Amino acid sequence: MASDATRIVSIGEIVAEIIAEDRGAGFREPVRLQGPYPSGAPAIFIDQVARLGHPAGLISCVGDDDFGWLNVERLRRDGADTSAVAIHPDQVTGTAFVRYRDTGERDFVFNIRHSAAGHTRVTAAGRALLDGCGHLHVMGSSLFSPPLVEAAEQATRHVKARGGTVSFDPNIRKEMLAAPGMRDALGAMLRQCDLFMPSGPELTLLTEAGSEEGAIAEVLRLGVSGIVVKRGRDGASYHDRNGTLRMAAFPAVEIDPTGAGDCFGATFVTCRLRGRSVEDSLRYANASGARAVGVRGPMEGTSSFAELDAFIAHAGGEGA
Amino acid sequence: MASDATRIVSIGEIVAEIIAEDRGAGFREPVRLQGPYPSGAPAIFIDQVARLGHPAGLISCVGDDDFGWLNVERLRRDGADTSAVAIHPDQVTGTAFVRYRDTGERDFVFNIRHSAAGHTRVTAAGRALLDGCGHLHVMGSSLFSPPLVEAAEQATRHVKARGGTVSFDPNIRKEMLAAPGMRDALGAMLRQCDLFMPSGPELTLLTEAGSEEGAIAEVLRLGVSGIVVKRGRDGASYHDRNGTLRMAAFPAVEIDPTGAGDCFGATFVTCRLRGRSVEDSLRYANASGARAVGVRGPMEGTSSFAELDAFIAHAGGEGA
Repeated sequence: MASDATRIVSIGEIVAEIIAEDRGAGFREPVRLQGPYPSGAPAIFIDQVARLGHPAGLISCVGDDDFGWLNVERLRRDGADTSAVAIHPDQVTGTAFVRYRDTGERDFVFNIRHSAAGHTRVTAAGRALLDGCGHLHVMGSSLFSPPLVEAAEQATRHVKARGGTVSFDPNIRKEMLAAPGMRDALGAMLRQCDLFMPSGPELTLLTEAGSEEGAIAEVLRLGVSGIVVKRGRDGASYHDRNGTLRMAAFPAVEIDPTGAGDCFGATFVTCRLRGRSVEDSLRYANASGARAVGVRGPMEGTSSFAELDAFIAHAGGEGA
Repeated sequence: MASDATRIVSIGEIVAEIIAEDRGAGFREPVRLQGPYPSGAPAIFIDQVARLGHPAGLISCVGDDDFGWLNVERLRRDGADTSAVAIHPDQVTGTAFVRYRDTGERDFVFNIRHSAAGHTRVTAAGRALLDGCGHLHVMGSSLFSPPLVEAAEQATRHVKARGGTVSFDPNIRKEMLAAPGMRDALGAMLRQCDLFMPSGPELTLLTEAGSEEGAIAEVLRLGVSGIVVKRGRDGASYHDRNGTLRMAAFPAVEIDPTGAGDCFGATFVTCRLRGRSVEDSLRYANASGARAVGVRGPMEGTSSFAELDAFIAHAGGEGA
């Protein structure tokens, strides 16, 4: 595999997502659905990187079924390297059913931990992908079992040993923190990452400090170089030892917020690796998130640079 | 648990079924879906028995999720005993996605073997249910792993040792015969059952004989008392040492054939156990199947005796 010092890699779950058409509570009755959509936070992230024309690859595992091939074909079509996506002959691809409540909250029925995604490992193909990798992105949602934690840590060591950088998005609901070993795994990733990318309330999830300012100081003291806080319709902020930069969000029509944070994160990381300023990177990341929420399906709203440029131009500098 | 010498029990998979609204091939693109519907062949069978007002119970396993509770609530509401349906704290309920092709063939994406259904065992609650059981029904589709085969054989021994009878529906697609141990397990069930209930082509699936007549003679020589061949729109036939009885189907509008064979089988077995003649039982079974195909959802078309009586009266004796 040709080395590419800026290639961005992620490791974790690929899933097929099924979305309820009508709002309501849960899945205890037949409802109108749409799917399967390609999904899984690390997959959405990598698809967004690839759509920006940047070298990108994913280490994951799917079943030899339509839900797996749907994802692999999408990632390939968008330019991502899927050589380290294992096709497990005996496991099924993970699934996530999601239904929005009237309050905006979401109800889920997941099959991830016991799906092919649970068999994600750093294989020889994965090591080859990581050899040419300049940046690794890890999602907290991928740390759902000891072998997955070990795989993420192995990938992190591999990339850091070769001078690469690591970003970490906790991407986790509070209830998942109770899972055995989960808090330790998240804490370890936080200490090893260069860029920490929590959504608003996640900023204080892993810190002793309960306030934003305290948490930012605490995370920077751990050796993390930069923090991007994703705040949805309230925009985003960037924090490092030199200070803080805040940016408002672009106006957006919210159709389906699932995946928007992943698109934001992927766009920020890609822009920074391509040498763009923090301010410019935040602007493109905001635009990427705003475009993503306007499209149904978690991976359907990923953007090219041309699409982001047009979106930003149309918005007339708002969000800047 | 009160003993009831005529209680009908089945053992095997509970699944949530998701149905594509539009015909076409497979699930490699987002399509309009409906679901989750309660499903799983043994569950449909037992629901149909319960809907006929006959004591019925199921030995199975679901996850502690909406798809599991959807099924448990439906079975309970229809009067089935769910005391032996284990709620697994760490597994997810099985799923089946089905899409009809224009040819009438079906494409599936299954998650059953690695779901909670794969953890179905004869627990203490299951033994209590079997203690009061006069008849056990086994589906070939439930024999998908060595522990499930062992559970079905254990239940069979338990019921036969107490003087109960056993019916067996191969309910299997040809491709599944290749699974390790599957053919042996099906053959063993065939030798142990009192009533064999194949769908048309399944009659010769497990026999040396390739012809219908030859297969019927061969199966009866094994010690099987009776054979019911389900022939869908071509009706059904009953075969024992005394001869053959054929019955035409009722006219039916086919909306969704999934589950119709299970409803047919459950109605035939229930009628026979309640002392009805073979002819009468075939008529009610045909009516049950015809009603089931006219309703979307595998368990949505189960019938009460009142509904079957009305259907038969309306059909004016056709199919008799």
